[in-house]
Amino acid sequence: MKGPNFRNLHRRRYFLSDDEVISLVNAYDTPLWVLSEDNLRMSCQRAKDFPNLYGLTVRYAMKAWSLGAVLKIVDQEGLHIDASSGFEVWRALRSDIAPERIQLTCQEMPEPHELEEFVRLGVKFNASSLHQLQTFGELFPRQSVSIRINPGFGSSKSADTNVGGLTSSFGIWHEYLHTATAIAKSCFLEINGIHFHIGSAVQTKIWKLAVKCVMAFAKEVPTVTRMSLGGGFDVGRMPNDRDMNIVSSGRTLLPLFEQFAADTGRRLHVEIEPGAFIVAHAGALVMRIHDIVDTGEDGFVFYKVDGGMNELLQPADYGMQHHLVTVPRLGHISKPTKQEVVVVGHCCETGDCLTMDLTDTSKLAPRMVLRAEIDDYMVAYGAGGYNDSCGAKDYNSFPTAAVVIKPCQGDFALVRERETLDDILRHERWPY
Amino acid sequence: MKGPNFRNLHRRRYFLSDDEVISLVNAYDTPLWVLSEDNLRMSCQRAKDFPNLYGLTVRYAMKAWSLGAVLKIVDQEGLHIDASSGFEVWRALRSDIAPERIQLTCQEMPEPHELEEFVRLGVKFNASSLHQLQTFGELFPRQSVSIRINPGFGSSKSADTNVGGLTSSFGIWHEYLHTATAIAKSCFLEINGIHFHIGSAVQTKIWKLAVKCVMAFAKEVPTVTRMSLGGGFDVGRMPNDRDMNIVSSGRTLLPLFEQFAADTGRRLHVEIEPGAFIVAHAGALVMRIHDIVDTGEDGFVFYKVDGGMNELLQPADYGMQHHLVTVPRLGHISKPTKQEVVVVGHCCETGDCLTMDLTDTSKLAPRMVLRAEIDDYMVAYGAGGYNDSCGAKDYNSFPTAAVVIKPCQGDFALVRERETLDDILRHERWPY
Repeated sequence: MKGPNFRNLHRRRYFLSDDEVISLVNAYDTPLWVLSEDNLRMSCQRAKDFPNLYGLTVRYAMKAWSLGAVLKIVDQEGLHIDASSGFEVWRALRSDIAPERIQLTCQEMPEPHELEEFVRLGVKFNASSLHQLQTFGELFPRQSVSIRINPGFGSSKSADTNVGGLTSSFGIWHEYLHTATAIAKSCFLEINGIHFHIGSAVQTKIWKLAVKCVMAFAKEVPTVTRMSLGGGFDVGRMPNDRDMNIVSSGRTLLPLFEQFAADTGRRLHVEIEPGAFIVAHAGALVMRIHDIVDTGEDGFVFYKVDGGMNELLQPADYGMQHHLVTVPRLGHISKPTKQEVVVVGHCCETGDCLTMDLTDTSKLAPRMVLRAEIDDYMVAYGAGGYNDSCGAKDYNSFPTAAVVIKPCQGDFALVRERETLDDILRHERWPY
Repeated sequence: MKGPNFRNLHRRRYFLSDDEVISLVNAYDTPLWVLSEDNLRMSCQRAKDFPNLYGLTVRYAMKAWSLGAVLKIVDQEGLHIDASSGFEVWRALRSDIAPERIQLTCQEMPEPHELEEFVRLGVKFNASSLHQLQTFGELFPRQSVSIRINPGFGSSKSADTNVGGLTSSFGIWHEYLHTATAIAKSCFLEINGIHFHIGSAVQTKIWKLAVKCVMAFAKEVPTVTRMSLGGGFDVGRMPNDRDMNIVSSGRTLLPLFEQFAADTGRRLHVEIEPGAFIVAHAGALVMRIHDIVDTGEDGFVFYKVDGGMNELLQPADYGMQHHLVTVPRLGHISKPTKQEVVVVGHCCETGDCLTMDLTDTSKLAPRMVLRAEIDDYMVAYGAGGYNDSCGAKDYNSFPTAAVVIKPCQGDFALVRERETLDDILRHERWPY
């Protein structure tokens, strides 16, 4: 794992110099999100290398980080958009994404008048249940539509993030495919796409099995010309972890598509829907260490930082591990010694811990870091996905953090201002 | 558990009639929070019944539900405020809470200039670490202050919510009490209060042990005249669950205070800090069932609702169980049959499930409910605590829900408007 390539990888992932951290903190305060334009563009390019025989569309699962700046850059790189709600469709449109590049795959359908506007503009719809298909068909007969299938099994490290199988409410249960085609027929809908997504940290073997299984359905629906393989590509956040190799995984799927073309004459266009894979390494959270405490000889040393579950929900929720780097404050030379510490967030909640055990979130997993002092800083890397977009915002009344971009060229710049207490209170009314 | 008292309890807890739900939905849409003024005031009164010999202050832990309307009513009932951040102090002040009724107990200290303003106004400070005590003492010598102690053990159903013991970063580790008193002495601080909080779902036996233990410290600090016993009083949300009986628990503590007075001549004023105990039964979330799907004969039936982890994070995070009641839509008579269902939220996230297993959040725990159809409603009761104040706000770009109050007298009224997509986007900047 050593060598120049690995060092390059680290330089890319952990993209802020100590000097940059200091000057960012002076200019923008903490906690502060930093978006690396370089890393974002590079991830987009990596996703576009996904092996395919007859064409590829990469849809960015925008719920991973739904910030306008992210959407704009991802769009410039030629990615399309996977939106998870009507609100996300509007948000993408407000970022000037071309409607035909947006596809909506949702648990909750938007209002009919919204859906009408989307269809008029050319936004694509992927029906995730029989009821959705029926509703769409009644509103828009003769349109084309894609359907999401639950192939009957999933693939995930954690049952929490498993979105295929008996316990999953996502997609049309595979046994009901014929009902789906009957609904489509009755509404003169053309099912041109078939879609599945079986969970995060997808395993190649199970993925291949799912492709085979969903292809069998695609065979029965002769209008299907595109197939979405979902996302959930694992991201290596810690220094010794690598991202999923989607090129080698994807290659194992090619013979299936070749065979399908030979059998049916249909050359399936492939779609993938990466989320964290696109943004994880593009996001870092800069925090200040505001206190250091310990619980005696048999206990732990705690670094208390001024970010937490407001910004990073994944560590509290799933025990997600981010690479944590300490940065000495200005004029302060760090002692080159290491220390094993537990890092806790600023919320009055025990669960607000950045170093939980990945397999058992009731346990602490102390981490070796370069020894720091109060008022030094800590950066959480690999944090761009499913954190800023889904934190426990405003808990303990902490305003939502600002975001700056580290552009490919030029100076850091603000892309989202820090929230204020006025913002939090703006909709409250009393007396009523 | 049957009988008229139990029926009354249920009527109080599950406080919306079907007609009320229908008219609320028509007026305010879903998802919608409803705040029961009756239940809120009643909980405040119950907390004030906590047994004590020499005086009692009930501090509402406002992080449980930090809405202005809640703070106002709690204040009218004579409760004081436990604030968890400088922002919460400002928020309480903005709700016209008298400064001397607010005490700040925080992980992250506010800026010195804010702290100065708080001290000038009369806000109380409870130092939670040696560094906090030192900082406070250097800024405000000769002030009085309270200290939070980690007594060395905790009490909780889940290690996630255990805030005492070796694994907890909250409070001054009990072995460092002498350092604390030395710091206080050097800054001429008077330690007039001692505080502990050992976790949610506190068990009486361990609580009593903690009181004994912390009293031993109070003996060594002769200026201590008040003692806070923390909060974490268990709430019974499901129909057969009862709230913790704080009166009987509190009674077992009285002899300790009597003995302390006899030994030291000091009659300790008692404080408690309930959060969920005050607001849980005062909050209900009204949602629409927008889809019903199943995963075949061996699978599950899923009711999909248009709320979820945006509003209710606790079910996803800890497997928290709320009582879920279906309500037929207008003009639709519900069949009086029951159905075992899994209830899932509207976010594209498997973890967004309202019926997870409490002991293992990777498992589903299907629930018997009155059978519903698409477009019927579902109400989650007992949901006022640690949900609206800490949801995964704006995830999937869903705007934050509105809140209406059900006043003791008069009509329902809006106390917080529904958020809009414009609100979510208001601080974004592009091009930068």
